[in-house]
Amino acid sequence: MYIDDDHPKEFCGIVGVYGIPEAAILAYLGIYSLQHRGQESAGIASSDGTQVYKHLGMGLVSDVFNEQTLSQLPGHIAVGHNRYSTTGSSNEQNIGPIVVNHLLGTIGVAHNGNLVNSFSLRHQLGKRGSIFQTTTDSEVILHLVAKSEGETIEDKILDAVRRIRGAFSLVFITKNKVIAVRDPHGFRPLALGTKEGGYVFASETSAFDLIGATYVRDVKCGEMIVVDEKGMKSYEVQEKIEPRHCVFEFIYFSRPDSQIFNEYVDKTRRKLGKNLAIENPCEADIVISVPDSSNTAALGYAARSNAKFEIGLIRNHYVGRTFIHPKQQLRDMNVRIKFNTVGGVIKDRRIIIVDDSIVRGTTLRALVKRLRDAGAKEVHVRVSSPPIRFPCFYGMDFPTKEELIASQKEIEEIRAYLGVDSLKYLSMEAMLNAMPKENGQSYCTACFSGDYPIEIEEEQKKERNEC
Amino acid sequence: MYIDDDHPKEFCGIVGVYGIPEAAILAYLGIYSLQHRGQESAGIASSDGTQVYKHLGMGLVSDVFNEQTLSQLPGHIAVGHNRYSTTGSSNEQNIGPIVVNHLLGTIGVAHNGNLVNSFSLRHQLGKRGSIFQTTTDSEVILHLVAKSEGETIEDKILDAVRRIRGAFSLVFITKNKVIAVRDPHGFRPLALGTKEGGYVFASETSAFDLIGATYVRDVKCGEMIVVDEKGMKSYEVQEKIEPRHCVFEFIYFSRPDSQIFNEYVDKTRRKLGKNLAIENPCEADIVISVPDSSNTAALGYAARSNAKFEIGLIRNHYVGRTFIHPKQQLRDMNVRIKFNTVGGVIKDRRIIIVDDSIVRGTTLRALVKRLRDAGAKEVHVRVSSPPIRFPCFYGMDFPTKEELIASQKEIEEIRAYLGVDSLKYLSMEAMLNAMPKENGQSYCTACFSGDYPIEIEEEQKKERNEC
Amino acid sequence: MYIDDDHPKEFCGIVGVYGIPEAAILAYLGIYSLQHRGQESAGIASSDGTQVYKHLGMGLVSDVFNEQTLSQLPGHIAVGHNRYSTTGSSNEQNIGPIVVNHLLGTIGVAHNGNLVNSFSLRHQLGKRGSIFQTTTDSEVILHLVAKSEGETIEDKILDAVRRIRGAFSLVFITKNKVIAVRDPHGFRPLALGTKEGGYVFASETSAFDLIGATYVRDVKCGEMIVVDEKGMKSYEVQEKIEPRHCVFEFIYFSRPDSQIFNEYVDKTRRKLGKNLAIENPCEADIVISVPDSSNTAALGYAARSNAKFEIGLIRNHYVGRTFIHPKQQLRDMNVRIKFNTVGGVIKDRRIIIVDDSIVRGTTLRALVKRLRDAGAKEVHVRVSSPPIRFPCFYGMDFPTKEELIASQKEIEEIRAYLGVDSLKYLSMEAMLNAMPKENGQSYCTACFSGDYPIEIEEEQKKERNEC
Amino acid sequence: MYIDDDHPKEFCGIVGVYGIPEAAILAYLGIYSLQHRGQESAGIASSDGTQVYKHLGMGLVSDVFNEQTLSQLPGHIAVGHNRYSTTGSSNEQNIGPIVVNHLLGTIGVAHNGNLVNSFSLRHQLGKRGSIFQTTTDSEVILHLVAKSEGETIEDKILDAVRRIRGAFSLVFITKNKVIAVRDPHGFRPLALGTKEGGYVFASETSAFDLIGATYVRDVKCGEMIVVDEKGMKSYEVQEKIEPRHCVFEFIYFSRPDSQIFNEYVDKTRRKLGKNLAIENPCEADIVISVPDSSNTAALGYAARSNAKFEIGLIRNHYVGRTFIHPKQQLRDMNVRIKFNTVGGVIKDRRIIIVDDSIVRGTTLRALVKRLRDAGAKEVHVRVSSPPIRFPCFYGMDFPTKEELIASQKEIEEIRAYLGVDSLKYLSMEAMLNAMPKENGQSYCTACFSGDYPIEIEEEQKKERNEC
Repeated sequence: MYIDDDHPKEFCGIVGVYGIPEAAILAYLGIYSLQHRGQESAGIASSDGTQVYKHLGMGLVSDVFNEQTLSQLPGHIAVGHNRYSTTGSSNEQNIGPIVVNHLLGTIGVAHNGNLVNSFSLRHQLGKRGSIFQTTTDSEVILHLVAKSEGETIEDKILDAVRRIRGAFSLVFITKNKVIAVRDPHGFRPLALGTKEGGYVFASETSAFDLIGATYVRDVKCGEMIVVDEKGMKSYEVQEKIEPRHCVFEFIYFSRPDSQIFNEYVDKTRRKLGKNLAIENPCEADIVISVPDSSNTAALGYAARSNAKFEIGLIRNHYVGRTFIHPKQQLRDMNVRIKFNTVGGVIKDRRIIIVDDSIVRGTTLRALVKRLRDAGAKEVHVRVSSPPIRFPCFYGMDFPTKEELIASQKEIEEIRAYLGVDSLKYLSMEAMLNAMPKENGQSYCTACFSGDYPIEIEEEQKKERNEC
Repeated sequence: MYIDDDHPKEFCGIVGVYGIPEAAILAYLGIYSLQHRGQESAGIASSDGTQVYKHLGMGLVSDVFNEQTLSQLPGHIAVGHNRYSTTGSSNEQNIGPIVVNHLLGTIGVAHNGNLVNSFSLRHQLGKRGSIFQTTTDSEVILHLVAKSEGETIEDKILDAVRRIRGAFSLVFITKNKVIAVRDPHGFRPLALGTKEGGYVFASETSAFDLIGATYVRDVKCGEMIVVDEKGMKSYEVQEKIEPRHCVFEFIYFSRPDSQIFNEYVDKTRRKLGKNLAIENPCEADIVISVPDSSNTAALGYAARSNAKFEIGLIRNHYVGRTFIHPKQQLRDMNVRIKFNTVGGVIKDRRIIIVDDSIVRGTTLRALVKRLRDAGAKEVHVRVSSPPIRFPCFYGMDFPTKEELIASQKEIEEIRAYLGVDSLKYLSMEAMLNAMPKENGQSYCTACFSGDYPIEIEEEQKKERNEC
Repeated sequence: MYIDDDHPKEFCGIVGVYGIPEAAILAYLGIYSLQHRGQESAGIASSDGTQVYKHLGMGLVSDVFNEQTLSQLPGHIAVGHNRYSTTGSSNEQNIGPIVVNHLLGTIGVAHNGNLVNSFSLRHQLGKRGSIFQTTTDSEVILHLVAKSEGETIEDKILDAVRRIRGAFSLVFITKNKVIAVRDPHGFRPLALGTKEGGYVFASETSAFDLIGATYVRDVKCGEMIVVDEKGMKSYEVQEKIEPRHCVFEFIYFSRPDSQIFNEYVDKTRRKLGKNLAIENPCEADIVISVPDSSNTAALGYAARSNAKFEIGLIRNHYVGRTFIHPKQQLRDMNVRIKFNTVGGVIKDRRIIIVDDSIVRGTTLRALVKRLRDAGAKEVHVRVSSPPIRFPCFYGMDFPTKEELIASQKEIEEIRAYLGVDSLKYLSMEAMLNAMPKENGQSYCTACFSGDYPIEIEEEQKKERNEC
Repeated sequence: MYIDDDHPKEFCGIVGVYGIPEAAILAYLGIYSLQHRGQESAGIASSDGTQVYKHLGMGLVSDVFNEQTLSQLPGHIAVGHNRYSTTGSSNEQNIGPIVVNHLLGTIGVAHNGNLVNSFSLRHQLGKRGSIFQTTTDSEVILHLVAKSEGETIEDKILDAVRRIRGAFSLVFITKNKVIAVRDPHGFRPLALGTKEGGYVFASETSAFDLIGATYVRDVKCGEMIVVDEKGMKSYEVQEKIEPRHCVFEFIYFSRPDSQIFNEYVDKTRRKLGKNLAIENPCEADIVISVPDSSNTAALGYAARSNAKFEIGLIRNHYVGRTFIHPKQQLRDMNVRIKFNTVGGVIKDRRIIIVDDSIVRGTTLRALVKRLRDAGAKEVHVRVSSPPIRFPCFYGMDFPTKEELIASQKEIEEIRAYLGVDSLKYLSMEAMLNAMPKENGQSYCTACFSGDYPIEIEEEQKKERNEC
């Protein structure tokens, strides 16, 4: 649930509210609790049944919204969006939800995921004279909606989402409806809840906890749910449903206090830690986590180990955007400012450090150096997922293959690079063993295995992901 | 050159630069000197020949741009835009220049004026599935460009501008061209200049003075000028050219130090004052202006009068956006904060106050009250244009007809409302007599006469103007 | 009334309000109208009879105050302060009014002027163990007040102001009084007004115009006025009164719409222009001013000249603090951004440009260049005051003697430097002739003559002035 | 290490740096790592050996400082200060370090603690004519320094600190020295470190970890350390030394990764948890902490319990200052926004929740409600310190006695108020048993026992604490 060079970034968090007074404030609370899914920009569109309002901005939810801006988002309908994007394509125009006008009225959409045929769709639309003001998938989807021959907005959206391929959890807003859609593979989560007779959608159930809504069920793979004054109605987007839930949502992205893909994240994460301990035991004194994302996996590891769980690293939660370094910079300042070692815990101990994943390895390497400086006798790394070797085209932002350490080096080389006494990853089997399956869940493991559930167009691979 | 309730608002100021290093900084200086044409938002798009960059924001030019934002606008090509709009439709999405991507690449446009068939164009485009992210004419124009079957960007723009009707001075930017267009009536000004072998376009020549460019000539009515690496090339947009320059540009909008429609604004304005004095003489001690917009007309009046020119009102130039009033508000505080009377000048004098135009009359009425309080013996109002009785659909923002005092009241009633000893307007004939004609200029007087050079669609009349 | 390198800076504007509801808002309006006297910082202290509140900040009045900050300044008593200081000593700690606590309670003071014995006072206080948190004269004065053996606050202030020497117009605030004091020479203005049964003090009467107060009389030289629940009471600070009003207040500092030293500023300024024309006639076509500060003098000049008054330079009123220049900078950009020439007025004309004073000459030189570029046939400069040759120690911020052009060059050399056809200054006699004297006024001319009414300690001369 | 209604607030964190280039940046890093000790304002004063510079502001360290402001703090000497204060007395004037000028030059001081005789000192100083611009103890101390007859600055400071009574860890800055002082009781921590031949002082050693300094020893109770170009020299402030370290620094205030009073905070905190488990065992399934402050105590508890440690509450680290609530507010929103329950962990479990202390009980009560809602079968509270019954006058900000729940209610009443199945506090004996004593440490337990090591003047008790 934190962001650094050593973890992939999630693209977006989305929320929809229908039929509850002050819907925009609920959407605000919702994206607030999903802040970890996108920290670059935030936006909300609302409707009072006659008109769609919106407010967007760069920054955290608490930077973008205040009483005054929220008061300008009236109505009982709202959609919220947190967005992350790489700096290069950071662009105010791209802040979601994207809202446009077309013949049938105003329509907006918040998207979590990534399309794999947006390049060719954009090209086809361009040939018919479409213009693009953003580089988002959302705008492509809205073009398709507007160009559909369907009569109702429901028909038009069905038309559009049948033409797109890839990972998409979507929440649309019109002046009198909220419409949620999830792709047939269900890569990204999307949950349905209720509150005071109204409906709520959110990427993760932790949003429901904050706004006091009750979790009902997930939006199903390949399902479209429409809520309006007539109530809620479900549509089938596609007949062929093949669940391929993103396993990384369980490993790292989602909050431990959320339920996704029909299971508590925290339970799966503890199981990953236990499986890791069984598969890769280690003789040591203590188990520590890289707080906060690997806390639960480390607890799980300790539960199946003789080493006891301790808090050996303290995170500094005041880290802001513009931290100033001295010119004669301490080499590991970026890590130092985020973490400090707890001297009394580390000194003279043999330590197992559990991390959920390794992307570049730079942060972990600096952390190991800090542990050694604090007097650790041995440092053993255990990773609660397999080596990441392949890029993701379904909504995670990894660095390029060249920057993925496990794509470039053998495990022994990584161990030497990190400077640790031993390094073990969880196996694919043990990872999948920890994943819930009793409700027909099945998982995408492309970043570990290179086994992509949907083929990617060549041109698409060159494009930056943008939900 | 100032903004208050008693004057119409101009919609936009536009600038284009081609072939000069640091083009964005020149565009910045250009829109800075055109700040009076639009004070709500500002934007610049630039190109280094390979890519188009942009930066936009709400506020004055000096609020929106700083060294850092300008440094992110590299290249020798740039287009700048100042925009004004009514609060209701104020919207970050609408800030110009509007820049979009289409099949042939990136294209942006800055627009000064107002289309009269945008409603039906928008409807036609909507029926073909177009979506709109702004409510601007610029976006409609870019849709037409993108949908054109023309092969080159020049063909596409020609196609597009032949379909639009109304007032439009346009400057387009692509990654390697600047293209300027002016409508066949030439409602709004647009000048061509040169600097260091490069080309500059601007709404008014005062922009050239600030950036050190040399005025060459106006972009002609119905002309399109393309500048790129091959130099400058002129195209004919329409065969039928009927100049209908906005007479209000001379009366009030443009800076006195600008040349527009082949004449110094200041000269025309002085002539208006002289004609006013000849047509409507007045026995009084002094002539004062409502600073700064009617300064030159007042000087002209005094030159043909026995009363001498004095400075009887001082403007406060520190007036910001959020001026705080006491709760038990002095009734005329809005005027008081902007103007103060010069006691020694006003006391016991018979005063002629020259104003360039009267829209609502509220500000002038409060000013008259202030003059009476300062001891004026008599107050006579002379207006250097005829009564404004009709709305403008070509790029000026007047209040509705109901709020135009001369549309609702007889002149004697207006005099009584203002509380002055006499009130005289300049006649249509005397006004047109002051306008330059030696180069075939001809004028739109619709706001005075109701004689509209281009018919307006009914639906269009209900729409808010948005350049 | 504007600030550039070619004019001295005034130090401060001060306002006091007693016995009127929402006193802080009136103080806000007052310092707003005195913005020209200090543009670096602003502050207000208020009292509701039981407690003193304050709010201060760097920037213009409209930047520092808003509804929220004003709402935290309750009560019927208030003192306001605008401050200017050179960048070097710019310091948030120095923002006035300075408010301190001492045994008798809270006391604050706003000061316009400059002490000439603050160095030695500070030294004496320091020897007794006083500490200083600011470098202002105000803090020295408050130390003297606190250390006085006087029993009442009135006694203590009388004690203190009898020990200070130099220029001082002061307004004190306590929890239940406003106390105004003016030095025996009356260097700086300070006026008394009434509104709704309450009392108002202000540096200039233009503040009364804005808040709707009525001018009563000036605070007399060497007078202390106390207003509290018992009404108003006058005290004599010193028996020996020798008026030495700052002549520069009439020439340049004060607003033309203010009354100071018993006369309308505008009247004196017009007389300066007339005397200048009589003393230094010139054969030319037109008279122009450097707007806005020399407008009235130019009108006066034109009234006694065959050349007619024209507006040949337009000021840009949108100039902000951080104007961005191109790297290959046009040499005269600083002037260009502030002023533009009116082509039709300047071209082929013989021009008299009237300026109120010349400090460094750099701005005027660049302006002359601009006039030449715009086609002026001849340029003659007439200055409505004598050459400035000496520094001021009574509250004006001149550059050092080395930077005063008239202290370094003969008039013919200055003419050559400016690049003009002729240059004439007003003589001392003609200047003093224009000054009102019927009420016993007498003037300080130190900056022209070097004749200082109060001797300056040597150490003091090295200090930066700080009111 | 977090701030809410259920914990006392610490007053300040202080840092000093001598003899290291870019000292201000090190001071910045230092107060950054001490952010938990004061979150309302931050300030740094620096010196390059000839002049003292400073920058201060309201807000977090990362809000107040940026590259530009730090670049204006040159030199090899610096002092930094984080400050907390109650809203009522929040005041820009009070931001530390307080820097003043006196006869011997500029001197500044950062203070952590609280004087108990500042009221009478202020009164004595006032009678001698001293004025006060702040309400801080720091200003009182600087007055005493300036008024001392001592010849050197060292003498003057010794004089001053021998007159003050209470809790004070001080770091002074002059243009060429840093001087650290700690009161004879050593209430607050203050450590000495070295880096690159220079010296560093900080409230906690975690500051040394971030800046890469090495911990040497604590500043001793009643010691003054002077560092200047001659090196380091120690002075004895008082002969009579009676250590009374604040036990709450170990229980809650200091970072777990710091060493204070000669011991790792984390070790003591774990011991508190173990003693708590031994003294107050509980039959339950899991032990959870209120993150992050009671994490270590909870781990310690679990180590001596059959229940295993789990993460049952997730903190939201994005909480900003201006969180917006819906109007029909969920009653427990303040807690909800900070913490969420982890469903899979809580459901159907018997839970022991370990908290470090209870002040008002409101937050804990709301948390318990959340745990019940999440399905907890039983909830038992164990507190790792005794009931807080008395106010602190030595630098902790407790609510008034009336708001201290343990001062108003019996333990059974508190249990009922919290709505838990059982509630146990750690005994005084077991608490003191966990505190290190091998180096002669002794502790202040006033907030638990009412046994105050230094008597408090009656008037002082009414004053708000201000370091």
